[in-house]
Amino acid sequence: MSVAKAQDLVLLLGKDSKRFMVRLSPGGELHTHRGFFKHDDILGQPLGVQLASHLGYPFYLLRPSLHDLIMNIKRESQIIYPKESGYALLKMNILPASRVIEAGTGSGAMTIVLARGVMPSGKVYSYDRRQDMIDLATRNLSNVGMLDFVDLRCRGVAEGFDEKDVDALFMDLREPHLYIGRVKESLAPGSFFGALVPTTNQVSALLEELERRDFVDLEVSEILLRHYKTVPARLRPEDRMVAHTGYLVFARPVSEE
Amino acid sequence: MSVAKAQDLVLLLGKDSKRFMVRLSPGGELHTHRGFFKHDDILGQPLGVQLASHLGYPFYLLRPSLHDLIMNIKRESQIIYPKESGYALLKMNILPASRVIEAGTGSGAMTIVLARGVMPSGKVYSYDRRQDMIDLATRNLSNVGMLDFVDLRCRGVAEGFDEKDVDALFMDLREPHLYIGRVKESLAPGSFFGALVPTTNQVSALLEELERRDFVDLEVSEILLRHYKTVPARLRPEDRMVAHTGYLVFARPVSEE
Amino acid sequence: MSVAKAQDLVLLLGKDSKRFMVRLSPGGELHTHRGFFKHDDILGQPLGVQLASHLGYPFYLLRPSLHDLIMNIKRESQIIYPKESGYALLKMNILPASRVIEAGTGSGAMTIVLARGVMPSGKVYSYDRRQDMIDLATRNLSNVGMLDFVDLRCRGVAEGFDEKDVDALFMDLREPHLYIGRVKESLAPGSFFGALVPTTNQVSALLEELERRDFVDLEVSEILLRHYKTVPARLRPEDRMVAHTGYLVFARPVSEE
Amino acid sequence: MSVAKAQDLVLLLGKDSKRFMVRLSPGGELHTHRGFFKHDDILGQPLGVQLASHLGYPFYLLRPSLHDLIMNIKRESQIIYPKESGYALLKMNILPASRVIEAGTGSGAMTIVLARGVMPSGKVYSYDRRQDMIDLATRNLSNVGMLDFVDLRCRGVAEGFDEKDVDALFMDLREPHLYIGRVKESLAPGSFFGALVPTTNQVSALLEELERRDFVDLEVSEILLRHYKTVPARLRPEDRMVAHTGYLVFARPVSEE
Repeated sequence: MSVAKAQDLVLLLGKDSKRFMVRLSPGGELHTHRGFFKHDDILGQPLGVQLASHLGYPFYLLRPSLHDLIMNIKRESQIIYPKESGYALLKMNILPASRVIEAGTGSGAMTIVLARGVMPSGKVYSYDRRQDMIDLATRNLSNVGMLDFVDLRCRGVAEGFDEKDVDALFMDLREPHLYIGRVKESLAPGSFFGALVPTTNQVSALLEELERRDFVDLEVSEILLRHYKTVPARLRPEDRMVAHTGYLVFARPVSEE
Repeated sequence: MSVAKAQDLVLLLGKDSKRFMVRLSPGGELHTHRGFFKHDDILGQPLGVQLASHLGYPFYLLRPSLHDLIMNIKRESQIIYPKESGYALLKMNILPASRVIEAGTGSGAMTIVLARGVMPSGKVYSYDRRQDMIDLATRNLSNVGMLDFVDLRCRGVAEGFDEKDVDALFMDLREPHLYIGRVKESLAPGSFFGALVPTTNQVSALLEELERRDFVDLEVSEILLRHYKTVPARLRPEDRMVAHTGYLVFARPVSEE
Repeated sequence: MSVAKAQDLVLLLGKDSKRFMVRLSPGGELHTHRGFFKHDDILGQPLGVQLASHLGYPFYLLRPSLHDLIMNIKRESQIIYPKESGYALLKMNILPASRVIEAGTGSGAMTIVLARGVMPSGKVYSYDRRQDMIDLATRNLSNVGMLDFVDLRCRGVAEGFDEKDVDALFMDLREPHLYIGRVKESLAPGSFFGALVPTTNQVSALLEELERRDFVDLEVSEILLRHYKTVPARLRPEDRMVAHTGYLVFARPVSEE
Repeated sequence: MSVAKAQDLVLLLGKDSKRFMVRLSPGGELHTHRGFFKHDDILGQPLGVQLASHLGYPFYLLRPSLHDLIMNIKRESQIIYPKESGYALLKMNILPASRVIEAGTGSGAMTIVLARGVMPSGKVYSYDRRQDMIDLATRNLSNVGMLDFVDLRCRGVAEGFDEKDVDALFMDLREPHLYIGRVKESLAPGSFFGALVPTTNQVSALLEELERRDFVDLEVSEILLRHYKTVPARLRPEDRMVAHTGYLVFARPVSEE
């Protein structure tokens, strides 16, 4: 059975479902809304165990899931949620050993999912023109143990990408339609393009450009996730939900006629 | 550049977006709604190329994505769609090297996604009490090259699972609440349980049982995917959509107090 | 208690939920998927009674609701559904005695709802440039007893509307943004404009024009209706649903600055 | 042209879309986030005109729509929104002259819509066992000028309703399935029953009871309204939306066999 060790990233889940994520280190302390824990009292404990804070409030010791990590990353921009990134992984055929470009690293939420998709033997090449975003994503990737599968490049994409013949390219930046020529230079024929686009106007502009540049198998879709309150005798959806993160656009480059 | 070889599974995508999937073999023929192809004329062609049927209708030569393969599998039952299975992969923290139980193999659509999740070094243990389903899933998994990552077992789950201490268990069968005791015996503490449940009554019954058996971090959600027509000047959703495949239920087993 | 009389429009609802609407006349016959009825056997029966077809299949005798009538009208085009028209009635403040213009009569489904909204003392002025649509709508309105509250005009709207200072104007025709100048000439200051628009491109074009012409209080929304199977022990949504009828756009004209 | 008069309820809509509703009276003042207005400066102004606050910020003078009034009523409980009440009006065939019972007055949002539906010659009989709700609804109905069309009764519904043979009955209270026997006593055969129910468990209980009591034409549905940001060049849905107000249940009573 797995036990909590120093340097492990753990999730302490309160009885009231409040979540605290922390990397364990001897001598450390975790402060919650219901009292604190000494890391030393957590170290060596088996996963799944119930622990009490110094105020006696019960928490469960868990390992965070990839979903927890993504929802919890430090962010300076809108992130791509698992409802979209999980679908994109399958739609873009990302497999262990795939070579994938990401245009628009942002906080690195999608980068984590792409890295998880190509591991253990593939690579993600992720571009962002802002150094602060590259730094933030580096910290986030390192924190979740995915940095080995990602090469981060601080650069705009107007001049194109270093990698050629890649298996897939995902784009999450403003005005993606401006860069489709560059995208096509780097994608292997028949490979996979994906993008998250916030407005309908940009979807139209992108579709137009994709058609012009000989991309086929176009798909535009949106994914809505609705959570329910988990009370068995009073089952009902939550009152409010995320209504929009963006439109997913997928396409595949083919040879010109 | 990649070319089509014998035994490759290829996708021929018509100019009108009609899709034909076929495994190439010398001497073979593919018949479409717009004329036929000799496999020998496809063999050796580069991916992404445009080919003409004997009637001159243009098709693109592509490799099917995992999404294509799932949507196209032979089925004798409702399948779990990528909108749900992609999300479940992240939510259940399925990683290369994970050991995962699936209860209810069905046609194998979810099995493919789980196998893709644990490859190259993990394993899926998939149970179904119907031999015809096991046979169908075996063919489907073999067809997509995922059979090496799956052990199929023709057996009901009332008597429990052979594997213990697994990282995740996904259930897609009638009345999942009846088997939660067995589920808990096989899951490692703090690991991941997921299920797809068709009715609200079953969601309630399952939630009740999960709470009774010391599962925490409960989530119930539903995912809606809405496709758009890909006409840039007349962008609008498709007229109709899938309104329901099922409710996703997630939870994590903890130690009893 | 109400009984079925000659010239009444009645709904015969089969035990299996199949619906048959018919206007009763002495000597008439109604043929269903499960046998026929003589109108004479229905005449004089109380509403809510169970009647048997000549094959002994049970049907309930009901009066059709406005919803039934709308869903059942003869149509040669996409109709506006009650999920949208009911909302528009409230949003556009349509009240007994309101004077309302409709641009784009079509089959008359929305006309029926507008007429129901202004009765007994208001009036709907409905324009369509196609005589066949005017004829169809006339039959549909007459059939549901709403013709007295509607003036139908066979004319395009490019040259404007006869009525001035109306309380509300609803538009359901191609390229509504072309006619907003004319719309403004007929609407009272501070009154209500509504439109159903099929594509995002037209929504954008319409919003631009509405802003340019001093309309305020702009709203764009879409309404999704999801039906459930009505089996208490297996409650779940229907498998498929209408994903799109159109975008609703609302605005109010104000005086130019 | 219509002008603002003393005792009129007006809407002052800020350039930034902030809304202020007030009943005009000589000598009064309206304070906004951007300065105040003297009522005397509003009285006599034409609808649709632009007025400036004492700080010079522009507002438009409008009459509130029924939608505005409902969204703005003083409430002590969850209200039924126009997306549901507009649909229910059509689905339950509520017409001028209809006699309608409402069980569960609450803040009166649905009562307003029912009153608007039956005016000018019908009547709504609305029951609530809490006097504070009856008082609140009375004020809200009076404020929107609908009190003449409603009889309010402070009483629980377990002992049934005074009115018999009504055209429709709408129920918005806890555990509606407990009262279906009473409901049936008051509804005319073949008339219309509707309810808003918050949980799936209550939907199941209600469906069971409706079937047992010879109701037919059962419908369960939910209505989702998604708003868009009204920026033509960046058209996109709002980030968040209401995910659940309740399930609509409709049925019609028939004679027992």
